[in-house]
Amino acid sequence: MIQKPSIPKGTRDFGQQEMAERNYIFDTIKNVFKTFGYSQIETPAMENLSTLLGKYGDEGDKLLFRVLNSGNAFSGIDPKEYLEEDGIDDKGLTSKICEKGLRYDLTVPFARFVVMHQNEISFPFKRYQIQPVWRADKPQKGRYREFCQCDADVIGSKSQVNELELVQIVDRVFSLLGINVLIKINNRKVLTGFAEICGFPDKVVDITVAIDKLDKIGLENVEAEMKEKGLSDSAIEVIRPILLLKGSTDEKISDMRKLMAGGSASGIKSETGLKGLDELEELFDYIASAGIRQHTEIDLSLARGLNYYTGAIFEVKALDFAIGSICGGGRYDNLTGIFGLPDMSGVGISFGADRIYDVLKGTGKFPEHLSTSSTILFADMGKEELKYIFPVVKRLREAGIACEVYPSETKLKKQFEYANKKNIPFISINGETERQEQAINIKNLASGEQKSFAAEDTDSIIAFLS
Amino acid sequence: MIQKPSIPKGTRDFGQQEMAERNYIFDTIKNVFKTFGYSQIETPAMENLSTLLGKYGDEGDKLLFRVLNSGNAFSGIDPKEYLEEDGIDDKGLTSKICEKGLRYDLTVPFARFVVMHQNEISFPFKRYQIQPVWRADKPQKGRYREFCQCDADVIGSKSQVNELELVQIVDRVFSLLGINVLIKINNRKVLTGFAEICGFPDKVVDITVAIDKLDKIGLENVEAEMKEKGLSDSAIEVIRPILLLKGSTDEKISDMRKLMAGGSASGIKSETGLKGLDELEELFDYIASAGIRQHTEIDLSLARGLNYYTGAIFEVKALDFAIGSICGGGRYDNLTGIFGLPDMSGVGISFGADRIYDVLKGTGKFPEHLSTSSTILFADMGKEELKYIFPVVKRLREAGIACEVYPSETKLKKQFEYANKKNIPFISINGETERQEQAINIKNLASGEQKSFAAEDTDSIIAFLS
Repeated sequence: MIQKPSIPKGTRDFGQQEMAERNYIFDTIKNVFKTFGYSQIETPAMENLSTLLGKYGDEGDKLLFRVLNSGNAFSGIDPKEYLEEDGIDDKGLTSKICEKGLRYDLTVPFARFVVMHQNEISFPFKRYQIQPVWRADKPQKGRYREFCQCDADVIGSKSQVNELELVQIVDRVFSLLGINVLIKINNRKVLTGFAEICGFPDKVVDITVAIDKLDKIGLENVEAEMKEKGLSDSAIEVIRPILLLKGSTDEKISDMRKLMAGGSASGIKSETGLKGLDELEELFDYIASAGIRQHTEIDLSLARGLNYYTGAIFEVKALDFAIGSICGGGRYDNLTGIFGLPDMSGVGISFGADRIYDVLKGTGKFPEHLSTSSTILFADMGKEELKYIFPVVKRLREAGIACEVYPSETKLKKQFEYANKKNIPFISINGETERQEQAINIKNLASGEQKSFAAEDTDSIIAFLS
Repeated sequence: MIQKPSIPKGTRDFGQQEMAERNYIFDTIKNVFKTFGYSQIETPAMENLSTLLGKYGDEGDKLLFRVLNSGNAFSGIDPKEYLEEDGIDDKGLTSKICEKGLRYDLTVPFARFVVMHQNEISFPFKRYQIQPVWRADKPQKGRYREFCQCDADVIGSKSQVNELELVQIVDRVFSLLGINVLIKINNRKVLTGFAEICGFPDKVVDITVAIDKLDKIGLENVEAEMKEKGLSDSAIEVIRPILLLKGSTDEKISDMRKLMAGGSASGIKSETGLKGLDELEELFDYIASAGIRQHTEIDLSLARGLNYYTGAIFEVKALDFAIGSICGGGRYDNLTGIFGLPDMSGVGISFGADRIYDVLKGTGKFPEHLSTSSTILFADMGKEELKYIFPVVKRLREAGIACEVYPSETKLKKQFEYANKKNIPFISINGETERQEQAINIKNLASGEQKSFAAEDTDSIIAFLS
């Protein structure tokens, strides 16, 4: 029976051209990571579900791809035990038949790696990791079920030098790619400070979630939402001037410092908030001295979904193309705690390769000649002629030149067509005459220029092809 | 609750050093593939089970990792329907709750890719693919449940030039890696010919499986096994001289040609066998003209497990290290037929990166300086000093030099230790004096040589670090 093949929804094949374009992005990011002293690691695609569950919230748990236990997964299981009034206890049964899941991000596997290999690692440990992750999200434009993350994290250091270096990495990567970006920076401690000075220290999450929506729903609705979450009018009075802050970074920090020090309507002082402002101030001081090319700014509406950030928060937006954030990250103090290694502060960023791809495509910023073609096609003119050219081809390949030998003594027209379709710029046609004269004929298909070389004269051939 | 983290059995983490070593192997292979005009593709980790099932035999089907359908996998399913006398109908229930599986090899996804993208592809299509595959094999030394395959295949050409180029690729890769190998070559048509001239044309598989064991169990047991499979004594008489063939490649081919042409004890002629011998002869003729450095030989005991080979069969063994085959492949005529694209002949090889890794480790052939370290560590001497060095560090990184800034104003001894542990060859310590003099002090930790540079003199600094 003939099957019409397809691939799972939300997944993709990458052909030659896309691979070249994607590799251009990955290589650019990788090379920048390396110059900052980050070293590469890789972790398995499958992790134990005990490692993954509970790290991404209830919603994340649902989006994990679970892998059926190998062998007979149901052996020893009585499914009747999982029958409930309104159907099957899906969760209970699933937990019996699936012990592994596919990696959901690179951060949790990194934390697991650090804990497992803590005795081999020199701290501060700077690692980068470029691998696919899988999420059972509803596929839609620009959202895939398999996509590649490019993460750099440093763990075991609290210094703002790390934050600076991540900003520098972002700056360098997007400058090399030719993408103009805005690097938005916030600090989770400052958000905590807001909650404290407004008198609702336990409402940090509600407040940050509300603030996160400022761009989307506007001030009025944000305030309504905070009220709905149980914040008092006086608390909202404290927060409003923060949302309306204007001016330079220095001015914003200075204004916030006054509020955090007890100068807000509530008169409450927040040590945590002040600490966050110190961090922000130090980071922006470093940024000024290091000469960042791209725009950077404090964005207090920046909260990001993840609950584990405890210090700096980053998000990067493309300025010339409408798309969500193309890079983001932050500092987390407790990531390895759950795996038994407490007091390890880390900070990291993640580049969204798929969105960066869309930006480069959309703005026409991919380099023109991301060469994926071979340099030269040798025509097949018959067995004896092939045997004559093999040593020549061999020498060229050993010099790093991508050569193809057309593998069929077919009409030359067809062989030319192949070269054209594959954008191969040179063709070499060598018949009996060339063989007897020990010559190699090469034609530049773009210019039409044709030249004959001694078969042994590899250097001249290479010069002509370059 | 603190979890002691672990990873699924048969999977591995790769740290910095292993990554450098593995990338050395992958990059070597990749670069050779490119010079032969192969272009890279990637396919999703998950394929529909309908694509995978039935392609690897019953045993292979059992070894597929299945992915549970997302959402509520058991929704609408009554497990009671799958209860049988002796337990659960595991297979039936599994097929309802799992529609996807993890990639088992790269060949079937490649065939699926070719069929789905046939209108965008120029044939003959030469692709390479380097991606992990997953098999629920029992983990043991050197066998993993997640491992990386490195495949090159060309599809849409029947020419032996392709076989030659694959042999050349093998030759070049192992020559570059410094591994001495034996490239064993056989042809499935010749094996078919054996079955035909001995009068049991339907016993090809039994005969080849038996021949495959020649090395392991010896001639006598192979003959016993063939008899057990139903071959007559006279048939075994026909096959014996083939198993005992001696001499050069030319002599072997010439002797077999006589047998296939009707000169065996049975007097039966095999056109298929003769065709296979033509192919072998052409390939070895090409090999002689192309100048292969590594050893090549005909090995008639070479059958390989996979049923889909129809022409050439390759297997590569390391000569200086005891390990199974480190590379293998062959020609298949019908691979895309099952997906609706008939008459596409292809030939490919697969490099076993894990075994190659073991050979390089075991023979000490990894290059000494697979550099994974940064070039220079800048000590943290305080905030003002950091701000002074940031622009210097930035210029060095932009020149491609991997620099680290120690992110904590701690004792210099500790910063030196960090450089030592991470094999960073240079350290730069710049205090208030250097800052005021606009100088940069650099020490070569191996030689002890120390030099001072003007902070702006990037070229001299780079020269010192090179």
